[in-house]
Amino acid sequence: MELKENERIDDLELNGLKIIQNKDGFCFGMDSVLLSDFAKEIKRSSTILDMGTGTGILDILLSAKTQETKIVGVEIQPEVAEMAQRSVILNQLQNRIEIICEDIKKLKGIYEVGSFNAIVTNPPYKKKGTGGVNENEMKLISRHEITADLEDFISIASYLLKDQGSIYMVHRPERLADIMVNLRKYKLEPKNIKFVYPNQKKESNLILIKATKNARPFLKIEKPIYIYDLQCNYTKDVLEIYNK
Amino acid sequence: MELKENERIDDLELNGLKIIQNKDGFCFGMDSVLLSDFAKEIKRSSTILDMGTGTGILDILLSAKTQETKIVGVEIQPEVAEMAQRSVILNQLQNRIEIICEDIKKLKGIYEVGSFNAIVTNPPYKKKGTGGVNENEMKLISRHEITADLEDFISIASYLLKDQGSIYMVHRPERLADIMVNLRKYKLEPKNIKFVYPNQKKESNLILIKATKNARPFLKIEKPIYIYDLQCNYTKDVLEIYNK
Repeated sequence: MELKENERIDDLELNGLKIIQNKDGFCFGMDSVLLSDFAKEIKRSSTILDMGTGTGILDILLSAKTQETKIVGVEIQPEVAEMAQRSVILNQLQNRIEIICEDIKKLKGIYEVGSFNAIVTNPPYKKKGTGGVNENEMKLISRHEITADLEDFISIASYLLKDQGSIYMVHRPERLADIMVNLRKYKLEPKNIKFVYPNQKKESNLILIKATKNARPFLKIEKPIYIYDLQCNYTKDVLEIYNK
Repeated sequence: MELKENERIDDLELNGLKIIQNKDGFCFGMDSVLLSDFAKEIKRSSTILDMGTGTGILDILLSAKTQETKIVGVEIQPEVAEMAQRSVILNQLQNRIEIICEDIKKLKGIYEVGSFNAIVTNPPYKKKGTGGVNENEMKLISRHEITADLEDFISIASYLLKDQGSIYMVHRPERLADIMVNLRKYKLEPKNIKFVYPNQKKESNLILIKATKNARPFLKIEKPIYIYDLQCNYTKDVLEIYNK
């Protein structure tokens, strides 16, 4: 596998899977690892859409966490989508994962209503115009709502999901009210939330949320997950996600 | 202090405070204890409204947790309001707490817009028509949305709060989406949430939420609180709430 300038291959420490990343771009974090585990209940043989694929990390992890699923990853940035495609080939997952380079706002013109059993997404967390202005364009589009905002992600997900299909999203706690209001607006009922805390002494810094199309209202707040113990080692819960 | 039939006096284990409860009615639980602690940041000399006072437990605990505040407790059931009034007298808190027997839906005709610096509430958790049908009327009104529903509580709170004043509410996790959607609808921005878990292995069964009138959106998910450790003893966090 030939790498481009500034690229490197990282070991995902799961089933021998690997990922190509650009050192100057958005490198995957715990977010994708946690989301792939949160979404592992997706039924065998489902067709899954990943909105905003980036490096393809979520699709590659999900291919290991779910059985016989077909995953479509959509990424707007051509050079990022191309890199994700090479990671798919590197892992010989072409029969499970299809990467397409497209704006998620165009998906309604490509797929019919109700085309997917499940949707996963790690959307940009920050509102347009907030945060660092010195970031390069690749990072900016991955982190900020430049090309699509939260309401776009949710409204499009609602259109593309089958009745009773679920969306699994990772996001930041500070946006929870925005998320809830938009999910309700588009008939995606919040069903499960898991809060992620860096350790037992800190506020939550990530949320995992599952919402189901046209489901009845009843939300479960699952037991939280802590990333590190107070000695700064990964907790047992995190090690289990890595099958360790 | 003379007690009526089926009444008893319980020690609140906080500053020598006591409460009169009816053995057949709704007896206070951890909910009120946690909410009084969650709301203890309410500023000195604030005027506080408690919507749906019940036994008066929240007002009595809040009088100890806040400084020089004036608390108005509103309870719709005459016999319950009268019992709460006797608990106020029992604790010699008549100068801090006023109990009024009224339907919260009538409060807009009694108080002007923006009359309160802070509002606390432990509203009925369950939707009308759900849950046990064999409960007596006293318990039914305390637990189910019979006389007022969540939207009533939130819309009235929004009217009665000053600009930048906060509501502190305890509720059930399964209603979180309803709560968020209604808070936003009435310009009460969710600012802090604390999830309560029975222990480290269970789902959350209570939420504490603070929302501020006309505040900018940014929600903090505070570190969670566990009631019991895995040996079924109160955790250090709970003992601290009791000053132990």
